[in-house]
Amino acid sequence: MKYELYYWPGLQGRGEFVRLAFEEAGVPYVDVALAAGEDASEVLRYIRDPKIERPPFAPPYLKVGRQLIGQTANILLYLAPRLGLAPRGDAARLWAHQLQLTITDFLVEIHDTHHPIGPTLYYEEQKREAKRRTNAFLAERIPKFLGYFERVIEANPGRGPWMIGSKLTYIDLSMAQVIAGLEYAFPKSMRPVMRKHPRLARLHRAVFARPRIKRYVRSGRQVSFNETGIFRHYAELDPPR
Amino acid sequence: MKYELYYWPGLQGRGEFVRLAFEEAGVPYVDVALAAGEDASEVLRYIRDPKIERPPFAPPYLKVGRQLIGQTANILLYLAPRLGLAPRGDAARLWAHQLQLTITDFLVEIHDTHHPIGPTLYYEEQKREAKRRTNAFLAERIPKFLGYFERVIEANPGRGPWMIGSKLTYIDLSMAQVIAGLEYAFPKSMRPVMRKHPRLARLHRAVFARPRIKRYVRSGRQVSFNETGIFRHYAELDPPR
Repeated sequence: MKYELYYWPGLQGRGEFVRLAFEEAGVPYVDVALAAGEDASEVLRYIRDPKIERPPFAPPYLKVGRQLIGQTANILLYLAPRLGLAPRGDAARLWAHQLQLTITDFLVEIHDTHHPIGPTLYYEEQKREAKRRTNAFLAERIPKFLGYFERVIEANPGRGPWMIGSKLTYIDLSMAQVIAGLEYAFPKSMRPVMRKHPRLARLHRAVFARPRIKRYVRSGRQVSFNETGIFRHYAELDPPR
Repeated sequence: MKYELYYWPGLQGRGEFVRLAFEEAGVPYVDVALAAGEDASEVLRYIRDPKIERPPFAPPYLKVGRQLIGQTANILLYLAPRLGLAPRGDAARLWAHQLQLTITDFLVEIHDTHHPIGPTLYYEEQKREAKRRTNAFLAERIPKFLGYFERVIEANPGRGPWMIGSKLTYIDLSMAQVIAGLEYAFPKSMRPVMRKHPRLARLHRAVFARPRIKRYVRSGRQVSFNETGIFRHYAELDPPR
């Protein structure tokens, strides 16, 4: 089966959660953003084509044969069993998807720290509001979300650093990516936070120590974090602690 | 099978998407918010209990036997086939879930019109930012989302007013609820918008003309829209057109 991932060129963004799954599984995929270079119109092809019966709303989406699958969590719901990255059993798979959707909620809040007035204006047009939203986010939302995910690992009866059972699943990849992104965006604020969440810190280290993930990060194919993605570093939003 | 829905008392919110599915299917469920009255602690029972291995992050969540299922879209993914409200076939079910997740994204943006600085402050503490976010939302996001959903109905080869195939699915219930909520929140702004989206207007009418949905709306059990939910009417956010 040929997998084609359609996502914006030049940023990790939501596409990275899908890429990490392919990379960990060692399953080949076409990264259309890499292939298309700076040409974003190729990425929008199946969104703009008026003949498409089931068009995605936005990238990322996956093309598998004639099927188009949109929404990051939905792509992973489809892919994970095929990549050997889903837990076993219907109840555990629903639980994994529930965690992925909670990560999705968290990602919206992370994105909105720099875009509180919405995606239609630049950061520079909403800096004052961004400062206010980020203060509330760092004070109350980071502890709430990370406290929850830490508890999930703690309550997992499986062995090892993982969120579900004793084997890595795609949820662990997504969770580690969120930690990596937060540490990029808020390096000063995240230092004391990670000390309070040792299980998440361990999971993050364990994921990025996986041989295939290490190889991917060093491959030159991975886009670096930057100020066009979800996780952005603006010094004014990460004051000294 | 006994279904128990845990959600905040006193508002439609995200719980309403699950209630509409039960009501249309005519399948009995325990609405814990109604049973518990104003006592929100009952709703938080399985979130707070430290012995729970797979705790939900937030309401709504569904309890089925010993299984707890969180995240609105995930609850519907689980429930819809059991209630006879899912389309047939794996590809169509994935497509339905993809649409539900796009509705979920839209709901976050609708909510954030009155809470752009985040859920930790009251509306009264972020009124200026809310006005700015709402302006951008009405000008650019409403047309983008509703234009997309209108196109989905148009591209559906099935007969009738529905989004997928020729039979009502849970997606239609959710879509109609979003229209109802937007018309409550922004009555002036939505009038010209609905004229431009006749297929969505027709779907909305068709859903609320279903006998069981009509009976539910008239039953006295449905909470009215109000200013504690996702869809809030603040006159200052809905200027004359």
